[in-house]
Amino acid sequence: MINTAKVLYEFVAEPGNNELSVNEGEIVTITNQSIGGGWVEAQNSRGEVGLVPEDYIIHSQSGGGSVPPLDLSFFDSHASTATSSTTHQKTNGSDPWAAFTTDASGGFSNNWAAQPQGTETGRTSTHEAWSSSVQSHPQAYQGPGADDDEWDDEWDDGKSTGGYTEEGGEGGGLNRGAASMKISLNKFPGFSKSGPDLYLLSKQGPKGKEKLPIYRGEVGPVWLYPEGQLDCVVADPKKGSKLYGLKSYIEYQVTPNVSVFHISAAFGPTLKRLSLPAADLLGRFEEEFIKMRMERLQGWMTRMCRHPVISSSDVFQLFHSYKDEKDWKTGKRKAEKDETVGVMVFSVIEPEETLPDLDLLEVEQKCEQFSRFTKAMDDGVKDLLNVGQEHWKRCTGPLPKEYQRIGKAFQNLSSVFNSSGYEGEATLTDALTAAGKTYEDIAQMVAEQPKKDLHFLMETNNEYKGLLGCFPETIGVHKAAIEKVKEGDKLVAASKITAPEKITMTKRASTMSYALQAEMNHFHSNRIYDYNRVMQLYLEEQIKFYETIAEKLRHAHGQFTTM
Amino acid sequence: MINTAKVLYEFVAEPGNNELSVNEGEIVTITNQSIGGGWVEAQNSRGEVGLVPEDYIIHSQSGGGSVPPLDLSFFDSHASTATSSTTHQKTNGSDPWAAFTTDASGGFSNNWAAQPQGTETGRTSTHEAWSSSVQSHPQAYQGPGADDDEWDDEWDDGKSTGGYTEEGGEGGGLNRGAASMKISLNKFPGFSKSGPDLYLLSKQGPKGKEKLPIYRGEVGPVWLYPEGQLDCVVADPKKGSKLYGLKSYIEYQVTPNVSVFHISAAFGPTLKRLSLPAADLLGRFEEEFIKMRMERLQGWMTRMCRHPVISSSDVFQLFHSYKDEKDWKTGKRKAEKDETVGVMVFSVIEPEETLPDLDLLEVEQKCEQFSRFTKAMDDGVKDLLNVGQEHWKRCTGPLPKEYQRIGKAFQNLSSVFNSSGYEGEATLTDALTAAGKTYEDIAQMVAEQPKKDLHFLMETNNEYKGLLGCFPETIGVHKAAIEKVKEGDKLVAASKITAPEKITMTKRASTMSYALQAEMNHFHSNRIYDYNRVMQLYLEEQIKFYETIAEKLRHAHGQFTTM
Repeated sequence: MINTAKVLYEFVAEPGNNELSVNEGEIVTITNQSIGGGWVEAQNSRGEVGLVPEDYIIHSQSGGGSVPPLDLSFFDSHASTATSSTTHQKTNGSDPWAAFTTDASGGFSNNWAAQPQGTETGRTSTHEAWSSSVQSHPQAYQGPGADDDEWDDEWDDGKSTGGYTEEGGEGGGLNRGAASMKISLNKFPGFSKSGPDLYLLSKQGPKGKEKLPIYRGEVGPVWLYPEGQLDCVVADPKKGSKLYGLKSYIEYQVTPNVSVFHISAAFGPTLKRLSLPAADLLGRFEEEFIKMRMERLQGWMTRMCRHPVISSSDVFQLFHSYKDEKDWKTGKRKAEKDETVGVMVFSVIEPEETLPDLDLLEVEQKCEQFSRFTKAMDDGVKDLLNVGQEHWKRCTGPLPKEYQRIGKAFQNLSSVFNSSGYEGEATLTDALTAAGKTYEDIAQMVAEQPKKDLHFLMETNNEYKGLLGCFPETIGVHKAAIEKVKEGDKLVAASKITAPEKITMTKRASTMSYALQAEMNHFHSNRIYDYNRVMQLYLEEQIKFYETIAEKLRHAHGQFTTM
Repeated sequence: MINTAKVLYEFVAEPGNNELSVNEGEIVTITNQSIGGGWVEAQNSRGEVGLVPEDYIIHSQSGGGSVPPLDLSFFDSHASTATSSTTHQKTNGSDPWAAFTTDASGGFSNNWAAQPQGTETGRTSTHEAWSSSVQSHPQAYQGPGADDDEWDDEWDDGKSTGGYTEEGGEGGGLNRGAASMKISLNKFPGFSKSGPDLYLLSKQGPKGKEKLPIYRGEVGPVWLYPEGQLDCVVADPKKGSKLYGLKSYIEYQVTPNVSVFHISAAFGPTLKRLSLPAADLLGRFEEEFIKMRMERLQGWMTRMCRHPVISSSDVFQLFHSYKDEKDWKTGKRKAEKDETVGVMVFSVIEPEETLPDLDLLEVEQKCEQFSRFTKAMDDGVKDLLNVGQEHWKRCTGPLPKEYQRIGKAFQNLSSVFNSSGYEGEATLTDALTAAGKTYEDIAQMVAEQPKKDLHFLMETNNEYKGLLGCFPETIGVHKAAIEKVKEGDKLVAASKITAPEKITMTKRASTMSYALQAEMNHFHSNRIYDYNRVMQLYLEEQIKFYETIAEKLRHAHGQFTTM
């Protein structure tokens, strides 16, 4: 299978840095998909080989069509820290931070929009480019809407795509219930379409909906965490295709755990298959790629499962609990009728009595604080990603080449010495050869190391970049609500709202603020755990790496002698 | 003191490699002399900063004059493995290997001359350039002749330059005898001026000269090593100047040891001062530079002291033993009258009776073997030097910068986290800051490491490059002798020589071959020791380096927690 790709955007190589300049529309051959760190190795028609950002190319489709092949933004954009599971929106390709600066009433966000896009070295990194140059990078932050055309039909009619395939052959007993289902997990109307008015001025709360309580925890307002926690295991990827092979996808088996609070244990462990659009034509790199996608899906599913609000949403629970097609369809129809979507999610949020209503100033201060923090963290995370991407490139490119050259030079000298004809040469030449081979080993270790440590650091930060990308919109809605409340007196004077409605609006802004605070506290708590964990893992692997090198060198050292 | 330098040769920077392109005649400011590995950091008039090969620039003289500033070839070219201390010659700037291919009767050396000069990466390294492009690099392999103009007057008249300075203030007792002397250690006529005929056809041996015996050792013909060995310590560099400050130099104190075989112990330890032309205007890097020169001088003096033939030469012994000006002048005049210089040194060499005369075929085979080996080793050594130079640049340039960026990114994220306002943040932020500082430490360690290990590996190989550079001429004389003996019958037939003279010629070629074999065995024995030693040192330091990093990371790791 020829592994070709089309270049989406011009990329100018930094000279001497193992990169390859490519032009928009150019067809290149992918020579190594497993570079990692956001790079692939490609060859152009002139036979030149070098690294290209993987986001700048799109894999050619064997059938002539094309799908976004790596689609790295998929999980990023799905990961949500919004105040509920129903706060996603189609961002239609616009940078969430940029969108926010447009929507929000100005002031604080100016220097935000003016944020330089390049890295320290003057290069524009791919990640930065995503969030800064929407016109020329249409897939940037496409978010949940990106694959809508493909997934809408799955949602509406599972049968048309070979969904719900019975896979009874996979195993006996409980596994009989395994079903294949395609799902877009982010079909929720967003905040910005409606704005906060719908909620702030709504006449009555939702009927018969379970409330989402916020109580006062040690760190401030927090969500109520369910006693049992949803969880699931993503595994066993399988390739499928539709439209007579024109489009292909990978199905992943998702196994929910049984001890789920909201779901009857009677269902037992069921196997579902969650499919994602496949990156086709990856040849020998496919396996690695699918593994990475699976890891990301696992990470995202786990994060969603552990989010107290998202995991309690009807549709999410349905996905976990359905056992057959009928279940799924029924549940889906019910979920589609849910009115507490968009900003109306706040109508089911209920701060406990110990939490007094906040005045507008407090609401505003909290909002500003979260805004500053999430923006600063977004910058910090992107900075680390840029640094990591550069480091990855060095570790897989020039550095191992250099160690290899050192190794070769030692071995070369050894073979020259071996030709001296002088007696008693063997000890030195054996030792020199061993030292040379050790440096070749080190070269290989250096090249393979990023996948063992930097990979996870990058993945975590990529996930957080995605999470942080949801905040501008969330904060934007809060800011809009604050502005609305500020106009309260004027609106009352103009008889657009009544005085009691103005009071309700203020109270509801307070509820929104509590929801945001609870969400931030959830975010902080997860963040502290996640960064501790990933840093431990990173440093553990780094320690092993350096210790192994030292050990190898000690072995080589022992062979030299100056008796 | 402004640290400026004039560019001698155009240098085209490899882009993205931290190098600076410079043009011939351009004046640059040296911003960092202590990069090492053959590089200095310079700034051009447009303010651009980058690395330039130190051999491509010449430091400006404050007084308007100029001296070859780093003069790295000095010791290289002085280090000799020729068959005696009197085999040096002015090569007048020509590549010794190239000279050899011209002098020697062709055939084997063709592919030698066609040897590519660039490195694997297509760059022309400075060392390669030295030996390949004599026209554009007039100082290349200038050898002993380079400083003749400066040092001849010292040799002829010490008083004119402040030589023989009494430095009684330095210490009492034995140190009273300390004297300052300037010496060029390579004022010997070379082989190629005379060719081998002088020796092959000389009528009689030298009168009253002590013979240099060669005996059969375990590894073949070997020199007789003196019971006591000359040795000396080079220390205490002092700056001096002459010509009203226009030219400056560094004087080094050379202290010979007392247990010298040929030198009466009655002299006791005397202190001499050996001066070398100074690289002026080095500013804050001067100290480091002088230290490096001193190390090289020490290495070279030790090597000469341990060479059984060189250390027994009159002039070398004189330098070690003289205690005052009168001694020196007397000895010098005697040495100047020595007739056993150039090829005539073979006339004092005497293979012991156990060593039978070699026939011409054996002589030729040995010569070919040494020629192949020394050429191959010269290539191997230069390859290692090129690799080392590239590695040095990476270790002192891009790599620590990257570790610094990683460290900064961690610390940056830590300070963002610190601003969260969330309780229980301190443990993570402290740990992240510590991890960040650890990577900054690692950056510094990486940048400083080459001076601790690669430096010595490079120095040893540089020394061997110098030693190997003497072989083409030596082998050339042997090849010429072989050709001469081959013509023997023809010469007898033409009555140019007598039949007994022809027999003498063959016997003398055999003596020359024994001398070369003894010298090669001396070279091999030293080489095996030197490379074992330097590899041990290199690997020891590398082990320490990696272990220290692992230890630092372990410390940082311990601060993270996922309770």
